[in-house]
Amino acid sequence: MAKDSFLVGLIGAGIGPSLSPALHEREADRQGLRYLYRLIDIDVLGVPPEAVGDLVRSARDLGFDGLNITHPCKQLVIEHLDGLSAQAEALGAVNTVVFEGGRAVGHNTDVTGFAASFARGLPDVPLERVVQLGAGGAGAAVAHATLTLGAERVTVVDALADRAAALAASLDRHFGAGRAAHATPDRLPQLLADADGIVHATPTGMAAHPGLPFPAELLHPGLWVAEVVYRPLETELLGTARAIGCATLDGGGMAAFQAADAFRLFTGREPDAARMLADIGELAGAVSAPK
Amino acid sequence: MAKDSFLVGLIGAGIGPSLSPALHEREADRQGLRYLYRLIDIDVLGVPPEAVGDLVRSARDLGFDGLNITHPCKQLVIEHLDGLSAQAEALGAVNTVVFEGGRAVGHNTDVTGFAASFARGLPDVPLERVVQLGAGGAGAAVAHATLTLGAERVTVVDALADRAAALAASLDRHFGAGRAAHATPDRLPQLLADADGIVHATPTGMAAHPGLPFPAELLHPGLWVAEVVYRPLETELLGTARAIGCATLDGGGMAAFQAADAFRLFTGREPDAARMLADIGELAGAVSAPK
Repeated sequence: MAKDSFLVGLIGAGIGPSLSPALHEREADRQGLRYLYRLIDIDVLGVPPEAVGDLVRSARDLGFDGLNITHPCKQLVIEHLDGLSAQAEALGAVNTVVFEGGRAVGHNTDVTGFAASFARGLPDVPLERVVQLGAGGAGAAVAHATLTLGAERVTVVDALADRAAALAASLDRHFGAGRAAHATPDRLPQLLADADGIVHATPTGMAAHPGLPFPAELLHPGLWVAEVVYRPLETELLGTARAIGCATLDGGGMAAFQAADAFRLFTGREPDAARMLADIGELAGAVSAPK
Repeated sequence: MAKDSFLVGLIGAGIGPSLSPALHEREADRQGLRYLYRLIDIDVLGVPPEAVGDLVRSARDLGFDGLNITHPCKQLVIEHLDGLSAQAEALGAVNTVVFEGGRAVGHNTDVTGFAASFARGLPDVPLERVVQLGAGGAGAAVAHATLTLGAERVTVVDALADRAAALAASLDRHFGAGRAAHATPDRLPQLLADADGIVHATPTGMAAHPGLPFPAELLHPGLWVAEVVYRPLETELLGTARAIGCATLDGGGMAAFQAADAFRLFTGREPDAARMLADIGELAGAVSAPK
């Protein structure tokens, strides 16, 4: 008899507003699965990020089928796992743990989710010179995705020069020397003038961090603009870019496809990613579709 | 917004065949609740019964709403709880833990479940002299229930004389001196000749322990016979008793009402116990209704 009952959860800090429970449970309901997605917030529990190992072991013992993992536990969880997918190993970060017969295996659907969203939303854009703003956890995942999609060269820009340099070095190791470069934001004018597109992977544009991540005059109609922020879906960056004629991709696709990929890993069932993307639109606000 | 998502489980040893997941989930489905019931088997996990404290704490941290507890953890769990219901405290055994805002409160729905089943299935039988066979965990719960229902005197019979004496002493403490007595099985002929009814609370009659718990000739038409075993619902004892004209009560009612009471504690919703009793009939085999 096929298993039709699934218990999953999300471990992280400050995750109360997460859309993941609704995204997963809506898709499971459409598929007729018994599916429960629980939030396990280390801030609420009052435990440090290092508790993630104990939480993962407890979840396995109590009958969870898998877990999503988010900030600040995506790296810390790795030492507690029994295996890693290729993407998770290359990235050194796990956002999805699947329990398979007592083994805990780590995956990274941020990478596969951004790649799927980009391939769907910006299918034919040039990828010779890509600028990525932001070298944090999300930045690392989307840089891996962009290079996997065939970008020739990604220049990682971050105000923290060391963080940008470390990510570029890691990308060069995994994808080949010369595939990545790094810079600080003062070089953005020249970099964007010469670029095919920009991936935005900082928090700027979220409700708590409104505004543009760089001056609007650096945008030009030849650039495509891919956004990681998805709450709101329509960031100031996307609106400004679209107004001057840039092709754009909002962050909802990454959010939907990372959830769809995790759902597939948890259940072995094929999710309807298009329906999950529509759910993101409902849950996170009006969809700003790729133009 | 009323909570409509519930995560519960059962901690015990060798619980793979438990009907509780199906019983709870069927009722929840009829009520339109998202409800998942997980089995947490200490034999499968390879941990000792004393691990129940850690398992309860982990379940609370991971978002469980409550737990059922069964053999061999019903007493061991108590020291890990923040409060007890009156029945659980009197009995010294917990079969249901509810997490209420971080507090873990223990209840015993074996007691309330047997009482509800008895009141429904044998509503007007005399309760002056009741014999109970079996002084183990189930026996302690049903003896409490029978005395709560108004039995004048319960004589606890067990081959382990010390266990029978200890239970009788405990019952006397809680219900008043003289309400309980104890004996060994060699005294059953005289006890049953004088009794109004017998409660059977040993494993005899289960698939793994077939047969009668005492010689058939000790039964007489003036006795009512209440069974705790519910797999099968129709035990050899019940069939023999009914054939000679005894009023009988099978163990399905206790199983259904203890689950219904736990469901109410977990969800705050009123279960339809009659539907749950019908489920027991489907899940455990043909119902032998009280005659």
